[in-house]
Amino acid sequence: MPLLDAESDRQPGCGEGCGCADGEVDEESGLDPALVEVLYADGLDPLLVEDIALVALAEDQDEHGTGDVTTLATIAEDAVSVGDFTARQAGTVAGLHIAEAVLSVAATADLEVERHVADGDRVEAGQRLLTVRTRTRDLLVGERPALNLLCRLSGVATATRAWVDALEGTGATVRDTRKTTPGLRALEKFAVRCGGGENHRMSLSDAALIKDNHVVAAGGVTAAFKAVRTAYPDLPVEVEVDRLDQIEPVLAEGADLILLDNFTPARTAEAVALVAGRARLESSGGLTLANAQEYGRTGVDHIAVGALTHSAPILDIGLDLRESADGGN
Amino acid sequence: MPLLDAESDRQPGCGEGCGCADGEVDEESGLDPALVEVLYADGLDPLLVEDIALVALAEDQDEHGTGDVTTLATIAEDAVSVGDFTARQAGTVAGLHIAEAVLSVAATADLEVERHVADGDRVEAGQRLLTVRTRTRDLLVGERPALNLLCRLSGVATATRAWVDALEGTGATVRDTRKTTPGLRALEKFAVRCGGGENHRMSLSDAALIKDNHVVAAGGVTAAFKAVRTAYPDLPVEVEVDRLDQIEPVLAEGADLILLDNFTPARTAEAVALVAGRARLESSGGLTLANAQEYGRTGVDHIAVGALTHSAPILDIGLDLRESADGGN
Repeated sequence: MPLLDAESDRQPGCGEGCGCADGEVDEESGLDPALVEVLYADGLDPLLVEDIALVALAEDQDEHGTGDVTTLATIAEDAVSVGDFTARQAGTVAGLHIAEAVLSVAATADLEVERHVADGDRVEAGQRLLTVRTRTRDLLVGERPALNLLCRLSGVATATRAWVDALEGTGATVRDTRKTTPGLRALEKFAVRCGGGENHRMSLSDAALIKDNHVVAAGGVTAAFKAVRTAYPDLPVEVEVDRLDQIEPVLAEGADLILLDNFTPARTAEAVALVAGRARLESSGGLTLANAQEYGRTGVDHIAVGALTHSAPILDIGLDLRESADGGN
Repeated sequence: MPLLDAESDRQPGCGEGCGCADGEVDEESGLDPALVEVLYADGLDPLLVEDIALVALAEDQDEHGTGDVTTLATIAEDAVSVGDFTARQAGTVAGLHIAEAVLSVAATADLEVERHVADGDRVEAGQRLLTVRTRTRDLLVGERPALNLLCRLSGVATATRAWVDALEGTGATVRDTRKTTPGLRALEKFAVRCGGGENHRMSLSDAALIKDNHVVAAGGVTAAFKAVRTAYPDLPVEVEVDRLDQIEPVLAEGADLILLDNFTPARTAEAVALVAGRARLESSGGLTLANAQEYGRTGVDHIAVGALTHSAPILDIGLDLRESADGGN
């Protein structure tokens, strides 16, 4: 299992946009190998997670490296603490290994972690998620960046779970969009999976999605479809339609997936009957938790919900340090 | 006005966590000098904004540089379009120059921008915010990353404005916290300012905030306060208290600011009377838009609201391409 995609020129420790990777590249992650393994198992790039941890920790300090002044002044250098990451409200958890990665990057000595729940688990208010033990100073420095990621990703998972529950029994799945937080797309799409949702395309490169502007430029939906198929014969092609009469021409071209933009549930049911299994169908626009079940019952395959990643409130999670500074019990 | 802080070792184009800046550093921003000026005037670091734009654009493409397959297949290389960034709902705007920066980084030819409103303006649904003209391909590639930032930051500004309105007439101000999106803290704190809020400390380094854990470790609030004052005589020191009887000892030490954690409005009023102007007071915990006015009327100086940055839904803004591909009118 390679630590870096052989075809990627991204250097560990640099932002994705960095162009400094000419020459020799150190492909080793600074994370514990066991943590690297679990991040891979989550479908995450450990080097990306490490980058995000570094950025989050760096922006929580000034550029002069002054550090956490309150902690440096009040906490003994060798003090060790045990802390419990604890849910303050009920929801679905995502990002526990990512929080571990942040603490791991912040840690200047051993970090011990005990996992009480797994990503994707539903938790109750007051439930312990993770117990950690390390130097107190490092724990206090890593606390807020770790929680900022964990609370946000758990918020995405919790919102996703609410849509999955709303669709229960219909066979339709909820999917995310590209309306993600810049820099955190891979993590937020992971959180959607933790909440029981499915990922739509990860970027502009891994699938085509033909929208209005492409249709206008190409001179019609059929022309646009042919152009994409010719240029990229192996990629899935999704086409957005906003009227029923646009569906048959797109089917004739062999669309894999048709996005029904702002269709009412009644129109969606007509589209499902018309398509009759010849392509998958995805609903987009006008969806709410209250009408999700109605859309799902039309027989549509997916509903696309941007709010999973652009408007989910956080799940409130806190870190409680135990009083005993030697970390007993 | 230097383009890069002389004491920073961050290389343009790299993430903040990047350690690759040994050797010669190019300190020039790739952005238009006029845009660099307005970003500075916004209180933003143009190099940071450029980094974030690069990251947002990069994660919207695969690592092989395949690009926006749909656009490449359907849009002529030399086509030029005019697009209007348009509010889909009413709110307060933030991040217009940041959106321009994203488009500027995406643009491979001239980018023309006409600004119709300013950051911090209240806008109505349907109102045009920004008109842009550039190569159609670049516009479609930059659209989503630009909107992801603009919608999110405008969401933060809109949420902040709601709190500012709720506090109207009380003299209290709303302040943010460190509960920000990893990688976007400086931008989100800018958005808070656009919404009429004030920034609390930017990082762990620019002010001390003594909390429970520091008090326990130092052996009492007085000891913690003395330790911080001794180590960092020039930094502001804020102390968190959760009982009225903790206030007088903290005042005796000369606290600049006292954070009242989870005080009811009645207890807050008692604290204001007790302190009688000897320090500023900030309320934290249990605050809602519904009770903000009641808290403000106690005479407290600030209320701290983490939700401004951790749970604000986006403000819905879209990009409408005009039909005329030559960009007339």
